[in-house]
Amino acid sequence: MNSTHVEFFRKTLGTDRVLTRKEDLLAYGFDGTPMLAETPGCVGFPESTEQVAAALRYANRERIPVVTRGSGTGLSGGSVPVAGALVLCMVRMDRILEVDAPNLVARVQAGAITAKLDEAAQVHGLFYPPDPGTRIISTLGGNAAENSGGLRGLKYGVTRDYVMGLEAVLADGEVLRTGTACVKDVAGYPLKDLFVGSEGTLGVITELLLKLVPRPAARKTLLASFATMDAAARTVSTIIARRIIPCTLEFLDRTTIRCVEDYAKIGLPLDAEAILLIETDGHAAVVAEEAAAMEVVAREQGATAVTVAKDEGEAARLASARRAALSALARASPTTILEDATVPRSRLAEMVAFIQETARKHALRVGTFGHMGDGNLHPTFLTNERDPEEIARVEKAFAEIFEKAVALGGTITGEHGVGLAKRKFLPLVVSPVGLEVHRRLKRAFDPNGILNPGKMFALSSR
Amino acid sequence: MNSTHVEFFRKTLGTDRVLTRKEDLLAYGFDGTPMLAETPGCVGFPESTEQVAAALRYANRERIPVVTRGSGTGLSGGSVPVAGALVLCMVRMDRILEVDAPNLVARVQAGAITAKLDEAAQVHGLFYPPDPGTRIISTLGGNAAENSGGLRGLKYGVTRDYVMGLEAVLADGEVLRTGTACVKDVAGYPLKDLFVGSEGTLGVITELLLKLVPRPAARKTLLASFATMDAAARTVSTIIARRIIPCTLEFLDRTTIRCVEDYAKIGLPLDAEAILLIETDGHAAVVAEEAAAMEVVAREQGATAVTVAKDEGEAARLASARRAALSALARASPTTILEDATVPRSRLAEMVAFIQETARKHALRVGTFGHMGDGNLHPTFLTNERDPEEIARVEKAFAEIFEKAVALGGTITGEHGVGLAKRKFLPLVVSPVGLEVHRRLKRAFDPNGILNPGKMFALSSR
Repeated sequence: MNSTHVEFFRKTLGTDRVLTRKEDLLAYGFDGTPMLAETPGCVGFPESTEQVAAALRYANRERIPVVTRGSGTGLSGGSVPVAGALVLCMVRMDRILEVDAPNLVARVQAGAITAKLDEAAQVHGLFYPPDPGTRIISTLGGNAAENSGGLRGLKYGVTRDYVMGLEAVLADGEVLRTGTACVKDVAGYPLKDLFVGSEGTLGVITELLLKLVPRPAARKTLLASFATMDAAARTVSTIIARRIIPCTLEFLDRTTIRCVEDYAKIGLPLDAEAILLIETDGHAAVVAEEAAAMEVVAREQGATAVTVAKDEGEAARLASARRAALSALARASPTTILEDATVPRSRLAEMVAFIQETARKHALRVGTFGHMGDGNLHPTFLTNERDPEEIARVEKAFAEIFEKAVALGGTITGEHGVGLAKRKFLPLVVSPVGLEVHRRLKRAFDPNGILNPGKMFALSSR
Repeated sequence: MNSTHVEFFRKTLGTDRVLTRKEDLLAYGFDGTPMLAETPGCVGFPESTEQVAAALRYANRERIPVVTRGSGTGLSGGSVPVAGALVLCMVRMDRILEVDAPNLVARVQAGAITAKLDEAAQVHGLFYPPDPGTRIISTLGGNAAENSGGLRGLKYGVTRDYVMGLEAVLADGEVLRTGTACVKDVAGYPLKDLFVGSEGTLGVITELLLKLVPRPAARKTLLASFATMDAAARTVSTIIARRIIPCTLEFLDRTTIRCVEDYAKIGLPLDAEAILLIETDGHAAVVAEEAAAMEVVAREQGATAVTVAKDEGEAARLASARRAALSALARASPTTILEDATVPRSRLAEMVAFIQETARKHALRVGTFGHMGDGNLHPTFLTNERDPEEIARVEKAFAEIFEKAVALGGTITGEHGVGLAKRKFLPLVVSPVGLEVHRRLKRAFDPNGILNPGKMFALSSR
């Protein structure tokens, strides 16, 4: 980046708030997605909305690409910079500005940490449900930009369901504030909803107004093992058919079970084909009744074992089997490529079988786990990025998996976003008409194309 | 409308599916909003998405304004035509295409009736919660276009929270399909969310994919009377502070109580300053516990009487007090002008007092009722549209009420939409930057401005 630009950003953000040394830039050149990296031009750490606005006004005039970044935990390359870009790293705008208990809302800066908000809510007996895997370090602005999900999607929804308003700086440096603390507000287009999930391509989110809910009084955790994937899937569909909506309904396949057990020594049954981790939360009486009913369903559908956690400690131990899945798989090979193909709940068993068959066909190792309650699967290929031939087979396998997910009425990404990693697959789910609408929206917000360029979709229709 | 155009629409939609006689057109010149009417050029009743697409393609080429209409129950003039427009009345596309119980979704045509969907869901033990006041005749397409609310907003949210996908015909006749039956889907911009609440200005919604939830097993209804508005407001805030989220938390003020009693003879206490109608639903044990706890709160806060419904019949009788509010007020004067100023829950008592004081100041009669749980008030002025001097005072009062609502962190419309009725107030809640974004979005979708022209905001920035 030329020195005039750097000088401007230093003057605007503060000398010690702009990184330009090669070794510093490298650390901001990648996120949680394997095999994607690029060196930015400089990295700035704004401390106010005004600083973000000044930086964008300048970047827009000078046509400097701008890539917004939180904690860099994304899994689709959404915050991987383009070469020479200004990276706006939002981690210094990390304040929880207000927890307004009577109105069940909180106001936070974009760089506030997901788990910290839930802790602040807990003081008031309240709860911020979205819980992406990286919630201990992920930022709420990043969660909003990616519309992050988590383990509680089936019952509690995803980040979108909690964003009531936001402040964002537009490409030209103008500040947009939209939304109110009112449960009902239909004044004008739902601009906040357009920003959620827009992956930093329409503006830089600087502040969020988020909904909170009463904290559930009780929770019960079950772990059920199955000799077949079908039995696990039947258990899930029977639970829903009995009109029970647990807060968590997660599964691990055989490969994942073995990796987790090897890593965490939880005592998982190594002969199981599938494990379901089930949690229900809410009123104590309902939780007890639902847990008992789900245990019965699991046994009816042929569970080989069902463990009901006796206390919080045991619940945490059982839940750690699922929380450890990605780390455990990551230990088993030099490179793990995690995806999040998603299908309607009724097609889950079919999709899991297809993933396993596809891996076999391409002679690949895959572990699949994920959110069975909401159809959001995480097929994770165990591979090595230094083996281009194997990586090529992995990519072929993913293409087939995404096509199948879409054929089953599903989607290419449930919660990770499109970013760079899945850009080429977007046309599987978004029609040419839809893509043209995407381009028109992008041009309406960012006519010079400076914001997170090249992410999600191609701006030209070729 | 010139005869070539009419001929085209007859050929496209069917000769008997196009109305052009003056007396027929008049019936489609207004909706549920008082004092707004205009005569359309013709009214067409499409029976398929293809017909809608053909009509729009032609209208876009010929620059004919198009106004979409469901059952015409809107309360902001959103479906009041502009002179000479083609009205697309969607009531013949009224099929419930599918209730997919395992995936908890339903697919419907835009003209399907709100209450019919809930009936179809009930067969499967499922529930479609949004319940606008006109749900027995309103269309789901209209609900989506206006993002309709209802009595259950606090616990169950509004129409937006149930739209998972949709099909819409764009201004140029292209058909956009967006969304899936997946609880999690972050592939691309959230186009469905942009259409919800866009009041027919971005496209014509032809089909909806809607979320269903398990039907609550039990329900309990309470009616509490208070000698002061403050006591009622304190009851609401204390209920929320005890972390109870009832499905309904409605109130009627003194004027409304008297009109309802006069109309429906329910046995309401005529000396009460406010009545709260409270309903909790869900698991029987929780419902019983919450109802008991809320009765205690109401008495602690000084309720002069609390009635707990003994059975469904009595519950329906108590609920009818609230359901009858608008009809009862409408009987009391030649013209009733109903608004839906909305504030954060904690500012409710202040807002109600301001409404009463404003009415007194302008020597007007007002009855206020509404959704106290979600801050959504319905101040209803009892007036006479033949008295222009009084109407001018009503308009002055509304302007003051909207300004106050916004000053309290609220909004000019919680659930009725902006349409024509509140267009001039939109700048109170949407900043110049926000309005410019509105214009850019409108141009991106409808460059010729044929779709519901003049609704919600002015396309030029003057």
